Amino acid sequence: MRVDLNSDLGESFGRYKLGLDERVMEYISSANVATGWHAGDPVVMRKTVRLAKENGVAVGAHPGYPDLLGFGRRYMKLSPEEARNYILYQVGALHAFARAEGLELQHVKPHGALYNALVREEELARAVIEGVVDFDKNLIFVALSGSRPAEMAGEMGVKVAHEVFADRAYNPDGTLVSRSKPGAVIQDKNEIVERVVSMVKDGGVKAINGEWVELRADSICVHGDNPKAVEITAHIRRVLEEEGVKIVPMKEIIR
Amino acid sequence: MRVDLNSDLGESFGRYKLGLDERVMEYISSANVATGWHAGDPVVMRKTVRLAKENGVAVGAHPGYPDLLGFGRRYMKLSPEEARNYILYQVGALHAFARAEGLELQHVKPHGALYNALVREEELARAVIEGVVDFDKNLIFVALSGSRPAEMAGEMGVKVAHEVFADRAYNPDGTLVSRSKPGAVIQDKNEIVERVVSMVKDGGVKAINGEWVELRADSICVHGDNPKAVEITAHIRRVLEEEGVKIVPMKEIIR
Amino acid sequence: MRVDLNSDLGESFGRYKLGLDERVMEYISSANVATGWHAGDPVVMRKTVRLAKENGVAVGAHPGYPDLLGFGRRYMKLSPEEARNYILYQVGALHAFARAEGLELQHVKPHGALYNALVREEELARAVIEGVVDFDKNLIFVALSGSRPAEMAGEMGVKVAHEVFADRAYNPDGTLVSRSKPGAVIQDKNEIVERVVSMVKDGGVKAINGEWVELRADSICVHGDNPKAVEITAHIRRVLEEEGVKIVPMKEIIR
Amino acid sequence: MRVDLNSDLGESFGRYKLGLDERVMEYISSANVATGWHAGDPVVMRKTVRLAKENGVAVGAHPGYPDLLGFGRRYMKLSPEEARNYILYQVGALHAFARAEGLELQHVKPHGALYNALVREEELARAVIEGVVDFDKNLIFVALSGSRPAEMAGEMGVKVAHEVFADRAYNPDGTLVSRSKPGAVIQDKNEIVERVVSMVKDGGVKAINGEWVELRADSICVHGDNPKAVEITAHIRRVLEEEGVKIVPMKEIIR
Repeated sequence: MRVDLNSDLGESFGRYKLGLDERVMEYISSANVATGWHAGDPVVMRKTVRLAKENGVAVGAHPGYPDLLGFGRRYMKLSPEEARNYILYQVGALHAFARAEGLELQHVKPHGALYNALVREEELARAVIEGVVDFDKNLIFVALSGSRPAEMAGEMGVKVAHEVFADRAYNPDGTLVSRSKPGAVIQDKNEIVERVVSMVKDGGVKAINGEWVELRADSICVHGDNPKAVEITAHIRRVLEEEGVKIVPMKEIIR
Repeated sequence: MRVDLNSDLGESFGRYKLGLDERVMEYISSANVATGWHAGDPVVMRKTVRLAKENGVAVGAHPGYPDLLGFGRRYMKLSPEEARNYILYQVGALHAFARAEGLELQHVKPHGALYNALVREEELARAVIEGVVDFDKNLIFVALSGSRPAEMAGEMGVKVAHEVFADRAYNPDGTLVSRSKPGAVIQDKNEIVERVVSMVKDGGVKAINGEWVELRADSICVHGDNPKAVEITAHIRRVLEEEGVKIVPMKEIIR
Repeated sequence: MRVDLNSDLGESFGRYKLGLDERVMEYISSANVATGWHAGDPVVMRKTVRLAKENGVAVGAHPGYPDLLGFGRRYMKLSPEEARNYILYQVGALHAFARAEGLELQHVKPHGALYNALVREEELARAVIEGVVDFDKNLIFVALSGSRPAEMAGEMGVKVAHEVFADRAYNPDGTLVSRSKPGAVIQDKNEIVERVVSMVKDGGVKAINGEWVELRADSICVHGDNPKAVEITAHIRRVLEEEGVKIVPMKEIIR
Repeated sequence: MRVDLNSDLGESFGRYKLGLDERVMEYISSANVATGWHAGDPVVMRKTVRLAKENGVAVGAHPGYPDLLGFGRRYMKLSPEEARNYILYQVGALHAFARAEGLELQHVKPHGALYNALVREEELARAVIEGVVDFDKNLIFVALSGSRPAEMAGEMGVKVAHEVFADRAYNPDGTLVSRSKPGAVIQDKNEIVERVVSMVKDGGVKAINGEWVELRADSICVHGDNPKAVEITAHIRRVLEEEGVKIVPMKEIIR
């Protein structure tokens, strides 16, 4: 049994520091590196890619909306032409740093409100996937497990990693419970780890209403923005390994 | 006899249109495409690269300062680490569009105040050239003819295109006469063309004080931002061809 | 009979020029000056305010989304706290230029997609109006004629100018026909002027389906971004004056 | 004996947090609030002004270069027209928040590399001071103690606060020792406090070479960006008060 652990990294910007990248890098297998639009800058990108290389972590692009002020967390209405080329620009920018450090780009995972918008807007999802393909049809596209964008990428001949969230509650239909609802974010370390093990070993988890929801878990999104998050990530890795699950970059799972 | 004609293109941004790209593209052999920092945006970059492809024009990156408000024309003090990674980011971004359209990147030409700062700051020039090499050591670096950055690129094993300016007066030492001085910019169409022919066929031109200054002219910078500029560019091409000079992309000259 | 003619001005940015401000300024009574977020910059704001002063045109702030790349024409999801303070920031910035030139701010008109979003999102509209009041409760708030934001401003004790559009078709309920539908934008100069006269003198206009729709017209939005638009604006003013309608700044109408 | 303690606050931006504003606000008398160009955003500005009000701290604008990526710490070459209007824009923006919270703007202190550039470029200093005067000739301009900009402001009829730095070494001519030189920044808490007391009570301090340098100290720049800085600031205040020095906003000193 194998699974990938991914985390959003390289989110510092100029004088502004964010995230405990050095620490969380020890526990993950894939790094989603911010590409300078919603977070990150060229100096940060260089350091983050280098840090990933030193830790044997695979790198992917984490493109977002052109909204540093909102950290890419605010919906913006983009045309398909805009979305496609915004993705291409950001993937290209990160690729340059991977290339400079002798690494290959593994994947592309849209960030924040863009990631969420794809689930609702099929035309947008198509444009974003086309942007990925424009650059390299062998890149893995990371999408919400079981979502329409994941399905679309498959239809378009693109490799997809189905992603699950360690600390988020699910609706019975496999969508995430909105952050505005009680119980949406799970805080308890043991509960988080139990759910992760369930998703990886049993192919699903209990939804917020108690029903069983099946989920394909190629990659688990974990966090490193504060000491507690790093501790949880370390714990997830430890328990998965004890359970006989091997942590590997998604390219070893999705072929 | 062969020479390249290069021009700065893709300088529109969102709703803001700049330059007669469609028209000037007919006369040039290399396009310096703005990379979204001092000008340009992803949608514009896509269109510009496609337009270059349709016209058989080679494309290069035209990276600049992070200063859209100043159009990259204002000096900024960058550290070598910043400069190197800013170049890498922008070259990577443009490369993505070339790749999407099935083209190879030919060259990198720094824009505006950055281009000028290289001539004065050796540490900055080294960082910029390293940024180019980080991406691809086979890219051609475009520098002011006979300048220290041109020489440095050679020392660092990087291909260099020595660039001359069709409409600018030269000092006897081969530097450009500052725009703030009278006579710095040449307006007369016939004088511009005579000087271009002299630079290409005789290897030099009369400096502002009447002395002869030797100049290596691999590529001539021409303009397309207004109808008169396009007309002059068309005239330069016509006369050069009548004089038996072949207009070819710089990659056919610099090997 | 009196009416105000307003136009969006000061939309240039750095090297990028937009709009025939000098020409359209001769025909209007109120200028909506861009405040540097979706368009405009401090040097442009200074010149635009000065130009308004020379032409006896009243100035107002034209705040927009933080989206220069999209020219403020793309919807963004803002929280009420963000919207309120974004308005306050931009109104304050423009006020500084009015103050420097010895003028008073007359009004605030939200720009583009923000103007449209107010009609649909009551919480957003409230936040924007609060931002105006935070600065000065005597400023006139410009809103789509008969819309919910116009009504809300009245309920909140804020002066409102009901705005109509010279070149846009109306639905029978007084909303604008979406630009994506045929017939949404009226091109014919004579038809535009007839409609303007109807709105000002008869208090309404024929909707796209032929029904009569009542519209309060305190201020008419006209354009100056190209020679044809300026010509139409000049024509509107001429015909209105021939019809005995006096063109005055909205502060002389809304008290 | 009276002196002002000023600190740079409101430097957070969107998701990015910087500075222990709540804590340092207890010890200072004047807050330099970032205005959204090199740091700060409208939501942060609102909160910072409100926090100052709650603590009885006077507020001033802290305008900087349009360079969030460089945090305003990189020199940029601005024209006088640009500088003047950039200041006016930023002062106006902050004024809006002060007005919304019922406060008056007390002062303007240029930030970072702009503050330093004023000392070297007289034309720039004049433009910046004109920008302040354009808004309100009664604002206090904060400048390096004894510097040419301080002198110029006086000549131009503008109130000036001469500012000294608690933790920086001085050259015998009253300029700051460059940060690149050893000993430029003083780390020892006791030494910092001794120097502050010397500057306030004895009108000068020992320069880096041991000579005595006279310094007028209307306001002392202190820091709050980390716990140690806050502790030093608290210590400075405590010792000054023990020495019989009253800490008051600069407007009570400069009239």
